[in-house]
Amino acid sequence: MRALAFDGSEARVGDWPEPQPGGGGAIVRMIAAGICNTDLEIVRGYLGFRGVLGHELVGRVERGPAEWLGRRVAVEINFACGACEWCRRGLGRHCPARTVMGIVGQDGAFAERVAVPVANLHEVPAAVGDEQAVFVEPLAAAFEIVEQTEVAGREALVLGDGKLGLLVAQVLHGAGARVLAVGKHDDHLALLAERGIRSARLDRWDRTPRDLVVEATGTAEGFALAVAATRPRGTLVLKSTVAKPAPVDLAPLVIHEIEVVGSRCGPFAPAIAALANGSVRVEGMISGCFDLEGGARALERAGARGALKVLIAG
Amino acid sequence: MRALAFDGSEARVGDWPEPQPGGGGAIVRMIAAGICNTDLEIVRGYLGFRGVLGHELVGRVERGPAEWLGRRVAVEINFACGACEWCRRGLGRHCPARTVMGIVGQDGAFAERVAVPVANLHEVPAAVGDEQAVFVEPLAAAFEIVEQTEVAGREALVLGDGKLGLLVAQVLHGAGARVLAVGKHDDHLALLAERGIRSARLDRWDRTPRDLVVEATGTAEGFALAVAATRPRGTLVLKSTVAKPAPVDLAPLVIHEIEVVGSRCGPFAPAIAALANGSVRVEGMISGCFDLEGGARALERAGARGALKVLIAG
Repeated sequence: MRALAFDGSEARVGDWPEPQPGGGGAIVRMIAAGICNTDLEIVRGYLGFRGVLGHELVGRVERGPAEWLGRRVAVEINFACGACEWCRRGLGRHCPARTVMGIVGQDGAFAERVAVPVANLHEVPAAVGDEQAVFVEPLAAAFEIVEQTEVAGREALVLGDGKLGLLVAQVLHGAGARVLAVGKHDDHLALLAERGIRSARLDRWDRTPRDLVVEATGTAEGFALAVAATRPRGTLVLKSTVAKPAPVDLAPLVIHEIEVVGSRCGPFAPAIAALANGSVRVEGMISGCFDLEGGARALERAGARGALKVLIAG
Repeated sequence: MRALAFDGSEARVGDWPEPQPGGGGAIVRMIAAGICNTDLEIVRGYLGFRGVLGHELVGRVERGPAEWLGRRVAVEINFACGACEWCRRGLGRHCPARTVMGIVGQDGAFAERVAVPVANLHEVPAAVGDEQAVFVEPLAAAFEIVEQTEVAGREALVLGDGKLGLLVAQVLHGAGARVLAVGKHDDHLALLAERGIRSARLDRWDRTPRDLVVEATGTAEGFALAVAATRPRGTLVLKSTVAKPAPVDLAPLVIHEIEVVGSRCGPFAPAIAALANGSVRVEGMISGCFDLEGGARALERAGARGALKVLIAG
């Protein structure tokens, strides 16, 4: 089959062995897959991954248990052992033996087909279109914030108006926070205005510290900005993973007794429900769609300044 | 009067104007005062403070309201406005208008006398000796952890066997955590063994990540060590304030969804009670005592490798 893979120096489309379903596995034919900043960081050397990229997937089950055959699915990306202490606590996302589709030790979604455990399949209802369904995985990561900290009624600041920031702002707004989103792109911030969410440009923002701050800039500099924007005793949710360590002054965390909450993958069910009921809308958030053969150009487009979600279609 | 003050380049003992009690103020004659790592950091340029150093104080009220005259006191170091939103919530330690004795805009305790608000006085009971009472302020900072996060029943790791680390280990042990303290000084760790607390040398520790980790190394490198020592979904309490920003890889916080809790000053009441009832013991934790004229030598002694608490006596 054809696949977009990273060999440690370059991401290119080429022939790749057909995936084999392990025990409890299914084969999903890719309908569409989204490019995430993590993919771009991997191509810059983050986590040392080699193999087929991609972890935001909507597809159709082609092989596997009869009850799943032909169903349209989104796929939870952490492939957990199912037996350890973490898995028993329902935290397979932290299973120490896990692989992660397209990120750690497991081929990903930018391919004709991908092998995934049946336990990771989530059916996508008819109310959610293919292009929307690609957002299930990053939207689940936005919902993770609601699992980790109080949101309702808080003065919240979302730093970053990229793909993830726009989803986070909508999730926090829906969960009852008073949201201000701060970013660099007028056209992105306008998408939030259409959804009733206040925003400001980074260069014109009043810099009043807020009680709940989400760092979703995707930059090494975002953390210091977020620390300065968090009130004493406030919560700073850290979403960006960047390959390059930056010098950080940690003293303000101590002086202001700030709580920093690292936040990664989240629950798929509320993400699918939010897309189905329209409480989170992704219209206007797609900056391009390429076929698999155009995968390298898709990555380039996704890395361009101001790009939002770029899709690869199967 | 005589005082040990920092002029921006050097800490030296000299003549200093008598302190004036403001409205609601008292004058406390210093009996003894302790040197904290923060004092040493200030002399290295941290926070840009100029004036009389010192914020760990036991003294006797010499001027002020009649009901306080002659009483022996410890002094809460944050001088708050008493009227703002933070003060009304009982969080005067975060009052944006606060000064901090010997740290921010307020002369400190390494002097014959110091002016403090009456609201900051805490009587020291007879069961607590002068040398013990000097530990009330840093011990309150250790008790702050118990206010900020669940402790009972957790596997806790205390990194750092300096003054603060030894107090934190005792507080967590008393609060029901299963504590392992890791440090560099056999004689310090032996003090914990006497108190029934397990410890290991940093160079011989098994490095098993723990659920609750307290970073009290006082070093710029401590944070990375603490992150690596925290389990997924665990809590890292950050106690050290260091003048020098260090390059930090924040990605593990996101990947393992670690919660970092900055922790500064704490409540005096439980600290005084713990010293009075013996649940925290400071015997063996004093490395030297100097009179005020020997203040510069006291700072030097406090900065020597392996030193624990150094006192200045009035």
